[in-house]
Amino acid sequence: MSDFSQPCYCRRCGTLMHLSEVFGKQRFACPACGYVQFEDPKVAVAVFIRMGAQVLLVLRANEPERGKWALPAGYVDRGEDPKLAAAREVLEETGLQIHITRLLDVLYDDAIVIIYEASVIGGELCAADDAADAQWFTRRTLPDVAFRSTQEILNAWLADA
Amino acid sequence: MSDFSQPCYCRRCGTLMHLSEVFGKQRFACPACGYVQFEDPKVAVAVFIRMGAQVLLVLRANEPERGKWALPAGYVDRGEDPKLAAAREVLEETGLQIHITRLLDVLYDDAIVIIYEASVIGGELCAADDAADAQWFTRRTLPDVAFRSTQEILNAWLADA
Repeated sequence: MSDFSQPCYCRRCGTLMHLSEVFGKQRFACPACGYVQFEDPKVAVAVFIRMGAQVLLVLRANEPERGKWALPAGYVDRGEDPKLAAAREVLEETGLQIHITRLLDVLYDDAIVIIYEASVIGGELCAADDAADAQWFTRRTLPDVAFRSTQEILNAWLADA
Repeated sequence: MSDFSQPCYCRRCGTLMHLSEVFGKQRFACPACGYVQFEDPKVAVAVFIRMGAQVLLVLRANEPERGKWALPAGYVDRGEDPKLAAAREVLEETGLQIHITRLLDVLYDDAIVIIYEASVIGGELCAADDAADAQWFTRRTLPDVAFRSTQEILNAWLADA
């Protein structure tokens, strides 16, 4: 959501923008060059990866939810295919190469979270980047986890036992 | 994708930004206040609505693909649940109230396109907003359609006959 309490300058020409109704919503528009500031959603991808009866989780090294376990995940940049973003995030955080096998769900929780199922096709497990650790867990050894996306996917996995 | 050939001014303070590597990518960063310009993806929702052996399409009143038929669709703004955005777009374009029954797919085609299946629960068919017309089509009367998302969903529907 735009924060209309703060001033907003035009990215194209640097002029202070005004609030204006464009396509049915209040948006910042530039009185000098006409540029309209559309606020695009944050999009994250998360990946549910099993090996036998185990699931892969990473220990978050950064906020939000630093110090908690979650599915490997990260933000999608503009111009990035979300499936490629998912594979990139898993490789960065766990050292593993994956093949995406299925779209599991799209959740909305402040950001839009696209959740894929994937299988490991290469690499060596080694935590890095946003992950302080990366480990396989069974249903019996699952730790407390962060994020609604991770919780919902793991709850479905637990119910499926 | 960011267009790095154009200058970019800081939305927070109006200063001309510099290119800098942040989280592994070139991004515009403000030398005065430190603001980093993250480029979030465009996200669209499209809705596949059947009634018996018919599917609902809208005739696009605006570019891109003006004058072609497509699934009811539109962009998701930041802060909007994509399911609510889907229901809003269908209501705006067709006058129909829907209930989303299923997530069909997520495609990437410049924007991220989230495709839902839905059924009609109210309203009267009446094209408006981005739609110059809205009509039900059978497999035999399908017109030429715009967008890969619409084409792929309709191809699957045709193959399912």
